[in-house]
Amino acid sequence: MSEKKRTTIVLFSGDYDKAMAAYIIANGAAAYDHEVTIFHTFWGLNALRKDEQISVKKSFLEKMFGKMMPRGADKMGLSKMHFAGIGPKMIKDVMKKHNAIPLPQLIEMAQEQGVKLVACTMTMDLLGLQKEELLDHIEYAGVAAYLADAEEGNVNLFI
Amino acid sequence: MSEKKRTTIVLFSGDYDKAMAAYIIANGAAAYDHEVTIFHTFWGLNALRKDEQISVKKSFLEKMFGKMMPRGADKMGLSKMHFAGIGPKMIKDVMKKHNAIPLPQLIEMAQEQGVKLVACTMTMDLLGLQKEELLDHIEYAGVAAYLADAEEGNVNLFI
Amino acid sequence: MSEKKRTTIVLFSGDYDKAMAAYIIANGAAAYDHEVTIFHTFWGLNALRKDEQISVKKSFLEKMFGKMMPRGADKMGLSKMHFAGIGPKMIKDVMKKHNAIPLPQLIEMAQEQGVKLVACTMTMDLLGLQKEELLDHIEYAGVAAYLADAEEGNVNLFI
Repeated sequence: MSEKKRTTIVLFSGDYDKAMAAYIIANGAAAYDHEVTIFHTFWGLNALRKDEQISVKKSFLEKMFGKMMPRGADKMGLSKMHFAGIGPKMIKDVMKKHNAIPLPQLIEMAQEQGVKLVACTMTMDLLGLQKEELLDHIEYAGVAAYLADAEEGNVNLFI
Repeated sequence: MSEKKRTTIVLFSGDYDKAMAAYIIANGAAAYDHEVTIFHTFWGLNALRKDEQISVKKSFLEKMFGKMMPRGADKMGLSKMHFAGIGPKMIKDVMKKHNAIPLPQLIEMAQEQGVKLVACTMTMDLLGLQKEELLDHIEYAGVAAYLADAEEGNVNLFI
Repeated sequence: MSEKKRTTIVLFSGDYDKAMAAYIIANGAAAYDHEVTIFHTFWGLNALRKDEQISVKKSFLEKMFGKMMPRGADKMGLSKMHFAGIGPKMIKDVMKKHNAIPLPQLIEMAQEQGVKLVACTMTMDLLGLQKEELLDHIEYAGVAAYLADAEEGNVNLFI
């Protein structure tokens, strides 16, 4: 009888800390039995990149974007206090000390919990990212699919 | 009988890419027959500035803000990879290549689709922006009007 | 019979302007009789720091974070146009001129209106912030408590 609660997050940001917040909320919501979708768009797509280099055919501009953007969750920077890369190192050090779960493992956990990870096809096109470069077992969709999920949602966030 | 769905976006950010995301979601929602409001506050007001210089009376501080802020959607920078202006140029190049719609046209489309564009009067005051400097056919309101829309909303985002 | 409306804001950002937006919306919603929660996580915790230095035992990394982060709402920077500290000064000047309410007073107002201010315990741990360093009369909770509030919410924002 009772409907399932639904949480839908647009992950626009490519910052390690913001992606952490998104995935902590998503994992929490999944644990409380929500149907959860994270819709990765623009820089948020970097969280879904595989960390090895994948050989795909790209134009010059696409290659440049590919090089300039972090390859995978573990390489993302901070939204604040980046300090030429010292910030992310410090965060990861304190996280280890406090047994906090690093972002790549938060993403794995989300997949195991059935969180739907979606890559925005329109911005993949723009940034020249191809399916081969992104994690396996994710979905591909556009703004229409996002809205269909979000309009039924209890918790809708743009991060 | 069935109520109209409603999408309400606070556009706080003055970044080209974030404003694009806001307007793509807004246009999508309008196409799916939502009532859509974008409430422009703080730096998000810059998306509504006319691109020519408008002569209005301003205090010294207001003139400084006016000069420091981008005049209109087309002049806004990126949230990431700004690279002294190369980033926005690159994005616009790939957008042209992929026939993606540039921000100024996304805003026009939104107006044609009946998306309600609102300028936050309190932050207009703060930043010294006057009605003459902003696009025609927009509305002016404060946080109370925003909340009245948002509390009926299905999709409420802060961008 | 009629249920109370509910507004739930995640304040992730440590920027003065974004925190202002969060507290203006929160105070507005409280005035319109919403139950309002602001859940402060990551850099948003800085808005809750007391402005004097509190002597607590910390590790080296925690001390560094403590020094690098702004001590209280009044010391926070801007998300845009920081300009080596001139931006925040300018904003505060125009705010004074327009009789706008500064952030520390917006926080006080929120407390007086019964807005529930919550500090995220997980990120307090990460950043090495202790209860003694934060404002009095706030609550401490984790993502589960946030979700319990948010899933009943009409307006849910991530700022």
